Amino acid sequence: MWVYEKKLQYPVKVSKCNPMLAKFLIEQYGGADGELAAALRYLNQRYSIPDKVVGLLTDIGTEEFAHLEMIATMVYKLTKDATPDEMREAGLGDHYANHDNALFYHNAAGVPWTATYIQAKGDPIADLYEDIAAEEKARATYQWLINMSDDPDINDGLSFLREREVVHSQRFREAVEILKEERDRKKIF
Amino acid sequence: MWVYEKKLQYPVKVSKCNPMLAKFLIEQYGGADGELAAALRYLNQRYSIPDKVVGLLTDIGTEEFAHLEMIATMVYKLTKDATPDEMREAGLGDHYANHDNALFYHNAAGVPWTATYIQAKGDPIADLYEDIAAEEKARATYQWLINMSDDPDINDGLSFLREREVVHSQRFREAVEILKEERDRKKIF
Amino acid sequence: MWVYEKKLQYPVKVSKCNPMLAKFLIEQYGGADGELAAALRYLNQRYSIPDKVVGLLTDIGTEEFAHLEMIATMVYKLTKDATPDEMREAGLGDHYANHDNALFYHNAAGVPWTATYIQAKGDPIADLYEDIAAEEKARATYQWLINMSDDPDINDGLSFLREREVVHSQRFREAVEILKEERDRKKIF
Amino acid sequence: MWVYEKKLQYPVKVSKCNPMLAKFLIEQYGGADGELAAALRYLNQRYSIPDKVVGLLTDIGTEEFAHLEMIATMVYKLTKDATPDEMREAGLGDHYANHDNALFYHNAAGVPWTATYIQAKGDPIADLYEDIAAEEKARATYQWLINMSDDPDINDGLSFLREREVVHSQRFREAVEILKEERDRKKIF
Amino acid sequence: MWVYEKKLQYPVKVSKCNPMLAKFLIEQYGGADGELAAALRYLNQRYSIPDKVVGLLTDIGTEEFAHLEMIATMVYKLTKDATPDEMREAGLGDHYANHDNALFYHNAAGVPWTATYIQAKGDPIADLYEDIAAEEKARATYQWLINMSDDPDINDGLSFLREREVVHSQRFREAVEILKEERDRKKIF
Amino acid sequence: MWVYEKKLQYPVKVSKCNPMLAKFLIEQYGGADGELAAALRYLNQRYSIPDKVVGLLTDIGTEEFAHLEMIATMVYKLTKDATPDEMREAGLGDHYANHDNALFYHNAAGVPWTATYIQAKGDPIADLYEDIAAEEKARATYQWLINMSDDPDINDGLSFLREREVVHSQRFREAVEILKEERDRKKIF
Repeated sequence: MWVYEKKLQYPVKVSKCNPMLAKFLIEQYGGADGELAAALRYLNQRYSIPDKVVGLLTDIGTEEFAHLEMIATMVYKLTKDATPDEMREAGLGDHYANHDNALFYHNAAGVPWTATYIQAKGDPIADLYEDIAAEEKARATYQWLINMSDDPDINDGLSFLREREVVHSQRFREAVEILKEERDRKKIF
Repeated sequence: MWVYEKKLQYPVKVSKCNPMLAKFLIEQYGGADGELAAALRYLNQRYSIPDKVVGLLTDIGTEEFAHLEMIATMVYKLTKDATPDEMREAGLGDHYANHDNALFYHNAAGVPWTATYIQAKGDPIADLYEDIAAEEKARATYQWLINMSDDPDINDGLSFLREREVVHSQRFREAVEILKEERDRKKIF
Repeated sequence: MWVYEKKLQYPVKVSKCNPMLAKFLIEQYGGADGELAAALRYLNQRYSIPDKVVGLLTDIGTEEFAHLEMIATMVYKLTKDATPDEMREAGLGDHYANHDNALFYHNAAGVPWTATYIQAKGDPIADLYEDIAAEEKARATYQWLINMSDDPDINDGLSFLREREVVHSQRFREAVEILKEERDRKKIF
Repeated sequence: MWVYEKKLQYPVKVSKCNPMLAKFLIEQYGGADGELAAALRYLNQRYSIPDKVVGLLTDIGTEEFAHLEMIATMVYKLTKDATPDEMREAGLGDHYANHDNALFYHNAAGVPWTATYIQAKGDPIADLYEDIAAEEKARATYQWLINMSDDPDINDGLSFLREREVVHSQRFREAVEILKEERDRKKIF
Repeated sequence: MWVYEKKLQYPVKVSKCNPMLAKFLIEQYGGADGELAAALRYLNQRYSIPDKVVGLLTDIGTEEFAHLEMIATMVYKLTKDATPDEMREAGLGDHYANHDNALFYHNAAGVPWTATYIQAKGDPIADLYEDIAAEEKARATYQWLINMSDDPDINDGLSFLREREVVHSQRFREAVEILKEERDRKKIF
Repeated sequence: MWVYEKKLQYPVKVSKCNPMLAKFLIEQYGGADGELAAALRYLNQRYSIPDKVVGLLTDIGTEEFAHLEMIATMVYKLTKDATPDEMREAGLGDHYANHDNALFYHNAAGVPWTATYIQAKGDPIADLYEDIAAEEKARATYQWLINMSDDPDINDGLSFLREREVVHSQRFREAVEILKEERDRKKIF
């Protein structure tokens, strides 16, 4: 089980109300390679992965929920003072018609999150490559968002998150090596 | 952010390997009214709900993740020793072909979870009725599962979970009353 | 069975061609909490709800089809004279590429309608709370649409429809009370 | 708008409780080529089709709702006395876990209905061929259902419905010819 | 099996970088009536269609992949030099956030391609009417795209593709007649 | 463009009519990690990947279509002589109700194929890890299918296909190294 601590993993600041930036950031909230996908993917794989990797999946999965909360906070801060007119001008009129200024798990185009974005195969090597791919794709998404943002405060947060994905990718690659070594050792003896 | 504690909210025991029961239980893992839907719904609504209700949503949302973990543990324990033949005979051949004995966020029919199951409207009363409805629907699902199960250990866990949904429904109904009172008070003065 | 009467439940007028407003209004045609969802939800629940509530569900479900027709008429009138260029400038270029100026059951973001928006649990209390929540969410959507519209004729129609949702919500709440009383009476004797 | 008449277009009888047959029949309730798809497709196309064809679409669309009600009645009668055990043995355990014995708009495999099954192009010829194809596909589905059913009462109802699809297909083909003639006449003068 | 030849079926030229036009063209790449839908529909139906029509389905299905490649080339050429800012101004900010300037199988509104767009019924007449409808709908889509485009080079390619759909529709209509004749001949002897 | 050659990449034999095995095999036709997903993923990524890797994606993507055809042939041969009763007993009654014995792009549970299974990020390293993960997941799926099959002819074909996925995975890993070396070389000079 999880215990909530009322703090963010990394401080979230926003330079100014900017709903158009929020429209794009929501890709990392409810998009194919966003933080929800990451958290749910890793925590779900824990039951069939070898014991050696369970802790890693729990740790990273739990951290991704903290990232999800950071993204939620960014999106909220970027839109909370936006009027309906400002939402519409930012390309969020469709979101406003359905959700007002509330958050929702959809991507930047408004497509609702679906579990088909993620996978669990019961094969440890396949699952870990799924995870490496996920981190590389999340890293790319953060880069595209940074490319579209000129809010230095947001970019500071996005850079932190992108960096975390690089670290996670590295750790998943190490886990692949550990499992392969173990598998090879078993074959020898 | 959340901190993981390596324990379950309530102990999960399983009388014997029973993949067919697992096939139905997974409804509460990745189904329309399951624990994933509940947790994600409440935590997402926190940003636009009045301050008075934020804590309630955080508490219940976090607890639903603990329930999700209980369901995951049940499904895992019911299937971990099942052979491919036993999976197939239990109606899980389609699941096995895709996921081996791993878990996945789909309902009992194999339909992947989608965020279209949940909603956030930015209107506090609408959101709280969405939440009451969610708890009533989850309660019903637990009842249908208990009706199909003859595993006393599983039924003990399911009864606990059903009971929690009744409590949550009650708390959301109280929150509606609090917000309506406040709204009416504002109109008077 | 149903008989078609060639008239609208309430007159639909449109001040001027306005495809951007149509883009948002379509949320109530094919969106999560729109009139299609409402009509299909209530009519589907009729078979497993107690006899006392069947008539209510039939009445409201049939009325929601009349509302669906009103929304369709609004959207059609707002776009029928729009050129491809005007559609594109209104953010409907994607709709035009697929459907010309025809209607389609998607939400304001272009996401096609899905039955996962609605539910039937076979539990009367759960189903009625689902219905109350639906009406509250539809009411909120009408409010967000009114907030974005400056067409007085459209707003007159939207206000009528919003008001009907309030009435339906009230009637579903009364039905809950009736069923609960009946349930309690059965427990006593 | 529509007025509800409390009668079925054609009487629905059921020889005996048979949830497995219900499992397959539901294909015509919430499946790709079922009655919901048909009704919604035709009624939606009315706004952009030439005036000459509007009445035809209204008539057939309204009739398809009557067919939907017939299918609903069949499914309900085939399952209403089924116990949870009988539902599970009929392959409806997944449906029961989610919906008890209530109906839902999904196909025989449990996939929820989606508007992506249908189309409206704003081009009258394309729309009418969409409609002809729809009727031919519905006719085929009724045939596959009759092939799997040995309930003479159900088969009587299914034969009636299949025959109606043949008639509708013919009428849509006539409408194509009428529009083509008109188009050619315009080219000449 | 297929052999790739490094050439396009028809030359693709693009007058200038125009990401907004690409946004709409992608409808024919990953939309309901686009080239992917066409190719996959026909090739899938080959196994249950009468022998006489298999070759036709293989030929047209294979040609539709060539069309898919032409559309891909158009979209790529229209966007390859677009900066993130230009993508955003063209309404492709949501696409960029997820995919950079890469292609993806979604429609102009960003809805991912789904097999629910297509059908195979195992009934030859139904399948061929599905195919005729598909060609008529694709023809309409090309017309709507031409109406929105002022790039003469793109319009040349789109006109070629529209013309091919007209030819395919005609060939599928002939196939219906051949099968009907054969069916009638069998009835006589 | 592609040219069709009327032969299979590897001969497909089937020991006997076995619709239940077909039900599971279809996972590799229209499932998350099946051959359709593979072919469409690689061919789509070609436009934004560095020139050095385009040929590899074209080759493997084209080969995956040959694999798709092999799987289609297997499924067809396993079911073509099955009666409706045999289909139903094999758990394919839901498929039969919708598609008769025709093929369709859905997974073993009947969920239609969706492009959300695949991804293209415009970042070459992310795209190649997506591809490696895809091959590892396809390899796992083939293993689960072999585990459920006792048809030696089918298993011969599945083993061939599994082996090809291992080779593809290796080639994608080499491509990652080539691109990383090139990237590093650019940084030095």
